[in-house]
Amino acid sequence: MNSLPAPFTILSLSPALDPHIQQIIDQKTKPPGSLGQLETVAAQIARIQQSLHPQSQPVCHLVFAADHGVCAEQVSPYPSEVTTQMVLNFLQGGAAINVFCRHTGTDLKVINAGVRGELPQHHPLLETRLVRRGTGNMVAEAALTTAEMWACLHHGREVVEQHAPEAAVVSLGEMGIGNSTSAAAIIAALFGWPPAEVVGAGTGASAEMQAHKVAVIQRALTRHALAPDQPLEILRCVGGLEISMMVGAYLRAAALGKVVLVDGFIATSAWAIAHALQPHLRDYSIFAHLSGEQGHARVLAALSVEPLLQLGMRLGEGTGAITAVPLLHLATAFFNEMASFAEAGVSQK
Amino acid sequence: MNSLPAPFTILSLSPALDPHIQQIIDQKTKPPGSLGQLETVAAQIARIQQSLHPQSQPVCHLVFAADHGVCAEQVSPYPSEVTTQMVLNFLQGGAAINVFCRHTGTDLKVINAGVRGELPQHHPLLETRLVRRGTGNMVAEAALTTAEMWACLHHGREVVEQHAPEAAVVSLGEMGIGNSTSAAAIIAALFGWPPAEVVGAGTGASAEMQAHKVAVIQRALTRHALAPDQPLEILRCVGGLEISMMVGAYLRAAALGKVVLVDGFIATSAWAIAHALQPHLRDYSIFAHLSGEQGHARVLAALSVEPLLQLGMRLGEGTGAITAVPLLHLATAFFNEMASFAEAGVSQK
Repeated sequence: MNSLPAPFTILSLSPALDPHIQQIIDQKTKPPGSLGQLETVAAQIARIQQSLHPQSQPVCHLVFAADHGVCAEQVSPYPSEVTTQMVLNFLQGGAAINVFCRHTGTDLKVINAGVRGELPQHHPLLETRLVRRGTGNMVAEAALTTAEMWACLHHGREVVEQHAPEAAVVSLGEMGIGNSTSAAAIIAALFGWPPAEVVGAGTGASAEMQAHKVAVIQRALTRHALAPDQPLEILRCVGGLEISMMVGAYLRAAALGKVVLVDGFIATSAWAIAHALQPHLRDYSIFAHLSGEQGHARVLAALSVEPLLQLGMRLGEGTGAITAVPLLHLATAFFNEMASFAEAGVSQK
Repeated sequence: MNSLPAPFTILSLSPALDPHIQQIIDQKTKPPGSLGQLETVAAQIARIQQSLHPQSQPVCHLVFAADHGVCAEQVSPYPSEVTTQMVLNFLQGGAAINVFCRHTGTDLKVINAGVRGELPQHHPLLETRLVRRGTGNMVAEAALTTAEMWACLHHGREVVEQHAPEAAVVSLGEMGIGNSTSAAAIIAALFGWPPAEVVGAGTGASAEMQAHKVAVIQRALTRHALAPDQPLEILRCVGGLEISMMVGAYLRAAALGKVVLVDGFIATSAWAIAHALQPHLRDYSIFAHLSGEQGHARVLAALSVEPLLQLGMRLGEGTGAITAVPLLHLATAFFNEMASFAEAGVSQK
């Protein structure tokens, strides 16, 4: 753990401002606590930024895309080519994440972390960080070499430094056919859970295909003999190129004092690795939504995390995270803009 | 029931477009169903508007304010004057609902439905529909006369016609110290439930004050001998001026084919009266959030309604409804703007 390079070190947050933050919230013209989780979010952002004027803008959303060798085991109802096709869809502005970012004022960047197909050399939305074209098949070999995994962590770090220097909030999403298998394998290994308890439908696997996913993950876990206290080894053996870059990006964003907005099941698998490496990551993190992917509820419960939204979404790309962006804006807005009892001349209890 | 005037008549929605609406959603570049409740919302708005280009803008938010005679029974920790003070806060732009409307592009209008204190004669945000200054105390008399109740229903109707003619979405909120007691009495009478099962903390009543609220409501229900199949009589005897105008506004908004956005516990008590009068109201209604007020979960379960948000909010003013406005915008945006599989050249399953 202590061998992580310095740029990934996340500092604990000072509680010094907490009483001032709470006093401001409690003096607003509303019954105490009556804005529920929006109050919690406002206080958390103020604490992260060590400011009595918390900001939730700009938001930078980074979508990491890569292919997965485990697709050779028929774990997804979609062909692997869909990863490339969907990245092209991102670049044309037609995917859900494009629409959601446009309508929430969120900056979007797509990172080619290891897509098999051809993508444009230059495109304003695309950042190329091609470590290799798809991972190895986890049932036959480690998904990544040690050098590749570290390259991914550093690419994730650099992408945050390059594209989110001014961002108050950093949000991560992903695209990669097969990556719900990788995420389930990570979660099973990291928490020591049977794969059957974390495998879900992903993009729409049938019950039969889900049973097959469970068996594939079990074979990979058996082959690599992974222990819960080896997060980087778990990441290397059953992770993904996009997931590894997300681990680096989560760590760096929090190390830079950004608010970290966490999407659904696959994002949470990357977050859980990062959190195992740097537990203070939690203090900087807001969990946007509970995914419809069944394993997510179990992970969030184990982490004692309460997400903001429960809309049955399970699309990926970070769409759940961006759906919560307006809630962050409302939270900081009430904190910064509402009148106090004294200012408004309203009687208190 | 059949004696409601024609402007309050809500037509059933045609299912003719439903297959087309669903086909458009299923052809978007995402796994089927993966946008969860956002898909349900988009389909519902399209069905209400009978359009394959559903619109969630403009949103008109109407906050009805009035005082309650039952405050003489000490049912709220806040003095009755706070109703007037908070309306003045609305007019100065300092309340939560001002902040939330500003940040979601929502038009706001405040209606004086029966506030005791003095308010400006003319103010751009204020509409005066003063039927009387506060209701009668429900434990001693009916809250309203029959003529006053009908005046309120028609004021609610006219306010929608006057301020929301172009609105795609009509959202209602309320302000009135004591109105959580009125709402609980309405719900208890309408559903035939013991008051103890629907009374909550309101703006922050202690356990002792809540027990007192239960006893007060029980006295009112006993006095007026209300039956569940008499929604207008329930409204007249234990309702409020603002709640009665909201009943008229809900009915008229749906009769005009608007999307109706429903806030928390008090708004739901008005909605439940309107729904009892015109059951098709349900088809036009989107429930924004589950209030932290304990009775709300029970009502929504009885109505088989699934709200969009569960953030523990219990502020009133319609803040929960406006918090859900960005979700409506994302729902219509994905429907109107996302590429289909064919348009994007993405392979299907």
